[in-house]
Amino acid sequence: MVADVIQLDADAKEADVASLWATLRSEAEAAIVEEPIYASLIQTTILEQRDIWRAFAYRLAHRLGDGDLSRLAVRDLCLSAFAANPPARLNVVRDLRAIRDRDPACRRFLDPFLFYKGLAALEGHRVAHWLWHEGRATLSLHLQSRISEVFGADIHPAARIGGGVFLDHATALVIGETAVVADDVSILQSVTLGGSGKQSGDRHPKIERGVLLSVGAKVLGNIRVGEGARVAAAAVVLHDVPPHTTVAGVPARVIGASGGTPAFNLDQMFGDGI
Amino acid sequence: MVADVIQLDADAKEADVASLWATLRSEAEAAIVEEPIYASLIQTTILEQRDIWRAFAYRLAHRLGDGDLSRLAVRDLCLSAFAANPPARLNVVRDLRAIRDRDPACRRFLDPFLFYKGLAALEGHRVAHWLWHEGRATLSLHLQSRISEVFGADIHPAARIGGGVFLDHATALVIGETAVVADDVSILQSVTLGGSGKQSGDRHPKIERGVLLSVGAKVLGNIRVGEGARVAAAAVVLHDVPPHTTVAGVPARVIGASGGTPAFNLDQMFGDGI
Amino acid sequence: MVADVIQLDADAKEADVASLWATLRSEAEAAIVEEPIYASLIQTTILEQRDIWRAFAYRLAHRLGDGDLSRLAVRDLCLSAFAANPPARLNVVRDLRAIRDRDPACRRFLDPFLFYKGLAALEGHRVAHWLWHEGRATLSLHLQSRISEVFGADIHPAARIGGGVFLDHATALVIGETAVVADDVSILQSVTLGGSGKQSGDRHPKIERGVLLSVGAKVLGNIRVGEGARVAAAAVVLHDVPPHTTVAGVPARVIGASGGTPAFNLDQMFGDGI
Amino acid sequence: MVADVIQLDADAKEADVASLWATLRSEAEAAIVEEPIYASLIQTTILEQRDIWRAFAYRLAHRLGDGDLSRLAVRDLCLSAFAANPPARLNVVRDLRAIRDRDPACRRFLDPFLFYKGLAALEGHRVAHWLWHEGRATLSLHLQSRISEVFGADIHPAARIGGGVFLDHATALVIGETAVVADDVSILQSVTLGGSGKQSGDRHPKIERGVLLSVGAKVLGNIRVGEGARVAAAAVVLHDVPPHTTVAGVPARVIGASGGTPAFNLDQMFGDGI
Amino acid sequence: MVADVIQLDADAKEADVASLWATLRSEAEAAIVEEPIYASLIQTTILEQRDIWRAFAYRLAHRLGDGDLSRLAVRDLCLSAFAANPPARLNVVRDLRAIRDRDPACRRFLDPFLFYKGLAALEGHRVAHWLWHEGRATLSLHLQSRISEVFGADIHPAARIGGGVFLDHATALVIGETAVVADDVSILQSVTLGGSGKQSGDRHPKIERGVLLSVGAKVLGNIRVGEGARVAAAAVVLHDVPPHTTVAGVPARVIGASGGTPAFNLDQMFGDGI
Amino acid sequence: MVADVIQLDADAKEADVASLWATLRSEAEAAIVEEPIYASLIQTTILEQRDIWRAFAYRLAHRLGDGDLSRLAVRDLCLSAFAANPPARLNVVRDLRAIRDRDPACRRFLDPFLFYKGLAALEGHRVAHWLWHEGRATLSLHLQSRISEVFGADIHPAARIGGGVFLDHATALVIGETAVVADDVSILQSVTLGGSGKQSGDRHPKIERGVLLSVGAKVLGNIRVGEGARVAAAAVVLHDVPPHTTVAGVPARVIGASGGTPAFNLDQMFGDGI
Repeated sequence: MVADVIQLDADAKEADVASLWATLRSEAEAAIVEEPIYASLIQTTILEQRDIWRAFAYRLAHRLGDGDLSRLAVRDLCLSAFAANPPARLNVVRDLRAIRDRDPACRRFLDPFLFYKGLAALEGHRVAHWLWHEGRATLSLHLQSRISEVFGADIHPAARIGGGVFLDHATALVIGETAVVADDVSILQSVTLGGSGKQSGDRHPKIERGVLLSVGAKVLGNIRVGEGARVAAAAVVLHDVPPHTTVAGVPARVIGASGGTPAFNLDQMFGDGI
Repeated sequence: MVADVIQLDADAKEADVASLWATLRSEAEAAIVEEPIYASLIQTTILEQRDIWRAFAYRLAHRLGDGDLSRLAVRDLCLSAFAANPPARLNVVRDLRAIRDRDPACRRFLDPFLFYKGLAALEGHRVAHWLWHEGRATLSLHLQSRISEVFGADIHPAARIGGGVFLDHATALVIGETAVVADDVSILQSVTLGGSGKQSGDRHPKIERGVLLSVGAKVLGNIRVGEGARVAAAAVVLHDVPPHTTVAGVPARVIGASGGTPAFNLDQMFGDGI
Repeated sequence: MVADVIQLDADAKEADVASLWATLRSEAEAAIVEEPIYASLIQTTILEQRDIWRAFAYRLAHRLGDGDLSRLAVRDLCLSAFAANPPARLNVVRDLRAIRDRDPACRRFLDPFLFYKGLAALEGHRVAHWLWHEGRATLSLHLQSRISEVFGADIHPAARIGGGVFLDHATALVIGETAVVADDVSILQSVTLGGSGKQSGDRHPKIERGVLLSVGAKVLGNIRVGEGARVAAAAVVLHDVPPHTTVAGVPARVIGASGGTPAFNLDQMFGDGI
Repeated sequence: MVADVIQLDADAKEADVASLWATLRSEAEAAIVEEPIYASLIQTTILEQRDIWRAFAYRLAHRLGDGDLSRLAVRDLCLSAFAANPPARLNVVRDLRAIRDRDPACRRFLDPFLFYKGLAALEGHRVAHWLWHEGRATLSLHLQSRISEVFGADIHPAARIGGGVFLDHATALVIGETAVVADDVSILQSVTLGGSGKQSGDRHPKIERGVLLSVGAKVLGNIRVGEGARVAAAAVVLHDVPPHTTVAGVPARVIGASGGTPAFNLDQMFGDGI
Repeated sequence: MVADVIQLDADAKEADVASLWATLRSEAEAAIVEEPIYASLIQTTILEQRDIWRAFAYRLAHRLGDGDLSRLAVRDLCLSAFAANPPARLNVVRDLRAIRDRDPACRRFLDPFLFYKGLAALEGHRVAHWLWHEGRATLSLHLQSRISEVFGADIHPAARIGGGVFLDHATALVIGETAVVADDVSILQSVTLGGSGKQSGDRHPKIERGVLLSVGAKVLGNIRVGEGARVAAAAVVLHDVPPHTTVAGVPARVIGASGGTPAFNLDQMFGDGI
Repeated sequence: MVADVIQLDADAKEADVASLWATLRSEAEAAIVEEPIYASLIQTTILEQRDIWRAFAYRLAHRLGDGDLSRLAVRDLCLSAFAANPPARLNVVRDLRAIRDRDPACRRFLDPFLFYKGLAALEGHRVAHWLWHEGRATLSLHLQSRISEVFGADIHPAARIGGGVFLDHATALVIGETAVVADDVSILQSVTLGGSGKQSGDRHPKIERGVLLSVGAKVLGNIRVGEGARVAAAAVVLHDVPPHTTVAGVPARVIGASGGTPAFNLDQMFGDGI
């Protein structure tokens, strides 16, 4: 059941936000001294900003602004989205923390904040999603298009995505209009949450909490991938996946239990027996 | 048989073009009022233009122009390509109509015209293809490279592509030098129409009318995917596919009939029995 | 054994470099006359440069420079990397020659030099890799991020990649932090050299000399793909692959011998029996 | 006596600001309908902004931001300057009103707000001036340099300039470090407020309230141009100018009374007798 | 009498246009061979264009387009202006010829066409002037502003300027709203055609045929500078100037006959006796 | 006699260069700590560069590069010019030192190096001048044009300018084709060194060592301004000026001795008696 999508975990409190922001700033201060070539960007993006959302808005605007919609305008839209939408605001922070917790190649908050395409795509999507619900389809589709061009992730603005979500690498990721992704999910590159064809209405997958969608997984149709399930690499999922199982293959079948929370340990293997 | 590639359907008449252009303009006029932030782009791109090809040329130039080949120069090339090549010109219009007909997330012509990467990649390819046959390999490869950078679709300029083709999402799409795609085909993201190795000559797939290539399908070698066939998600196709069948799996095998025209209903499922 | 990674073949001598450079220049001179629209770029990038590395640095800077790190600054970094690292310098040349030798669509050095995303991504990675080992993580991650945005290939700066490597199309390619790719490997689009989960340490694949990784192949975990092996299209490789074998399927299994050097003939087929 | 420089007139009250802001917005709304090609700029710059200072900051950032100091960063500096400095904030509004009152070619507030170089140069100077007094010389000199490049007016950041000042055309205007310009002054193009040589210290002119400096006037040294004086076109002023007189010639001499407030009527003539 | 302003000389016929266009093209072809670094610009701007007006429109758009009004949009405006206004179209050509005839530093048409700020400012003004009379004040003021920023010449869009006009250097040039400049006039840098004060209505100078306005000349008020007159360097002109005289000084007085057509020989001297 | 133009003073030795470079670097290091927003520019432009000419080339390229001639290409031209021309190379350094010595508003080398338009225009001219003598007129005129657009100073590439020259503010400065400016001259804004009319050949002024050309001075024709002379503000000079005199007025006449070296003390006053 995904009713709790975009609700907040008990541990995503404002105190957490303040602590993460302080850590990010001290990482930024260290980086400026180590790498003056990059100091201006870090200073203006992080150290001159009053809080982590302004920093996110600055960074997103910097990467997504273009001749069609300037950086100045994108920043205003981001700030409006964050101001109007406290849960989205906290999800931004949870997403950043999720990367630091799960990605063994990530040694500080600064790197995903500045560079990771998956994080940028996801936060840009949160802004586009807000615009979509404000009835501003044109702008939300523009943002979707820019996110897709720059970060390689094509997420329909209507898709609903929870917090603590980690889009690793994000390249060639596609998420359809009626898809729902719960909290604490990890999704790797070349994954598709696709539709079941031409009919309109609710036609995309529902991904529950704690799920891992491994590299190249395709989940098609209005089906449910249950809590804590693991979809193995390159699996093509056409039917509901029971909670806490691993599915693999083309088409995918259950091959065992998932064990723990796959989204957290990112183990893309197929399980012991294979 | 693909002899009719890049021929025109009876229903792609000039009257159709005029009607689509009028609809696009009225959508543009509505969008300007709804979203003044985006009005200038819509006004200059569509409402100031004399016909739909000038509008396409403007939009393509806007997205593909860069420091190597300016927007002004790209527009001139697009206009020359459309002027010299009436079938390509009509295909542009048929492609736009195909998206509106097939994509359930698409509610007006304006969105694919402005934003969809697959449409932009395809029309950019039509210009590159014309340059290739004019003996201007350098420019055509430049355009291929830009299309690949901006839209994530890597289509060799020599590839022949018919009208009414829908490249959905387009990310990570690769189409090789001697590939041929007939009219009325739908191709999803992460699809490859690849070669059979190092030998030169005709070495890429031939995709006949009405085929659906689902997400992640790989079709390799100088083989034929017959009319109305459906290649399921993630299938790896190494041999000819009979018309009106569905193939699936790694490597792909026939698993049933395709039913109807798969390109039109976009049903990526594997068929009833699976 | 991959101890010889980033060592130099006997045939990558300086004499070879001079000969390739002369050929590239004469191709450039011909292209300027044929296509004056593109003459300035070719003149400044190639004909005004003193050697092939300065030409590479100019071209990479042109494509990777942006508002965060200007073209001028990127060029200085490239030149420093090439100056400090003779083996990397020769690998750049070997990579270019590998494309010309292996890609049947490639008819002159000029095209990959100017346009091929895979070559640009690989040489950009060589610069990022040098920065990583200089202790300049921020800049190296910036370059990784730019390479990923522009060329669609996401290569961790710590990954070790040999010479004569051909990244064909490169779109949606992901190579992880502790991966090693030996000399003379060919890798197609949508390939992943991924980790085995959340644990840190050495967790990515080792690809030995002469291997072909076909389109969409996923190789996961600290496993070894032996010399001259062929990984078929869309294979998911979870265990060591013996030298000179072909593996295919999800998950991948040995289906036969590879025959010759798969990286050189680029035959993505599964073998005779399939 | 110029002690009242940068003090506020009784008539520059907040109520005035609100009224001007409302008028500017209604002009903007009319312009959007009349000229959709320009609608996006007007919408984002004015109609999306909460108050006139945010609008000014947006517009200044748009015109002064560049690769050295991005639009995003310039806007933050402008907002900080306006927030920290209420008198400067009101002077911005008085300057805009002054143009509308005095320039017969100006028929709405929108035109100087969007286009007039003199207004933009002056408000950019107010930001640079604030930075100078914050001890941030490098940034203030950067802004001076950008203002000079873009608007052709070279105003040292330390120069003190009052409110209701009209810099008409502004081209080739130079104002030195220790110059002081009181409220309600009008200055035309090619005017210099220059130093008396190499010695440091207070060495530039003091221009009192209501003065008109006609086109090409040069005022040199630490001299005083008295209240309501008129400096005729091309005059070279080397000595104090008595209040309410007209000076003309090379070097300038008193040729009569100025009559009224020359800054308000912009009469550059030499007087009746000439 | 300036009734013949913007009329055409007998010698500015279409045949002349064709001849100048042919010469410009052959100069362009020579320049491409001599300077490949600059070949692309010359090729796209001149050799790819169908006529001299398209070439002018391309070049103007290249220099005046920016984030507010893109190069694509500026070109469309230029082409519309030239198409709607045959006299303006011929004046463009006469202006180019005038420079070649009068400027001893100018050895081919190519240099003013590509580089001279005065020519670019004047032709940009012709487009702005057309927009002004089309009732599109916002766009025309935008163009004025851009011309002023880029070329340093501030010409009100309502000002009427004839053909065969040479704006030499153009820096710090200001021409007011109701000014009229007849055919065959030469104007040097830092010249002002200014107003007589705050009153509205016709308040700027009328410059008749063949006049030379030397460097730094200021002409103020609704006065007439008669045919063939010469205004000496730095003169401040406050009264009508009789035809065929030289005026000089601050304020200006008649000091002799002008001799010949001063606009053609560009002699800024004051005359024999001084 | 100006035979010693572009010769080197005894005191412009390489040792001086090293000392200035060291001082500039230490100023840069201090500025980076004080103003991290601007650190990246300073780091890449100065601290990453090997010598002061590379730093100048980097900075010039940064300011003058554009879509017509990229920053990368401009830098290569600057480096070639400095490499080929040791006297020009030393003049660059002398010019920087001259500003620091003469401008009372200048408190460190860093400010003119980064920001002063006059210095940038002069050094850009030195590169254009070298190109002119290499027979590359098109590129040299392009640079002249860019310098004029960006810095407001229009200097013909053929003009010969010595070392230790200070162009203060530089706005609206015009220097003609056959002008010669000796060492140790100071020139203020709105100065013209103009021609005497349409005849070709040597027709512009010769300015000897130590001369001060005050704001708005116009020197016209092939005349000589003798060593140590002072041309007062707004003077129009039509005849030779004897050494060590002050000339003033329209037209200019000798009004006294100049006293000392006017270029060094920048005293624009007319002299004691006025």
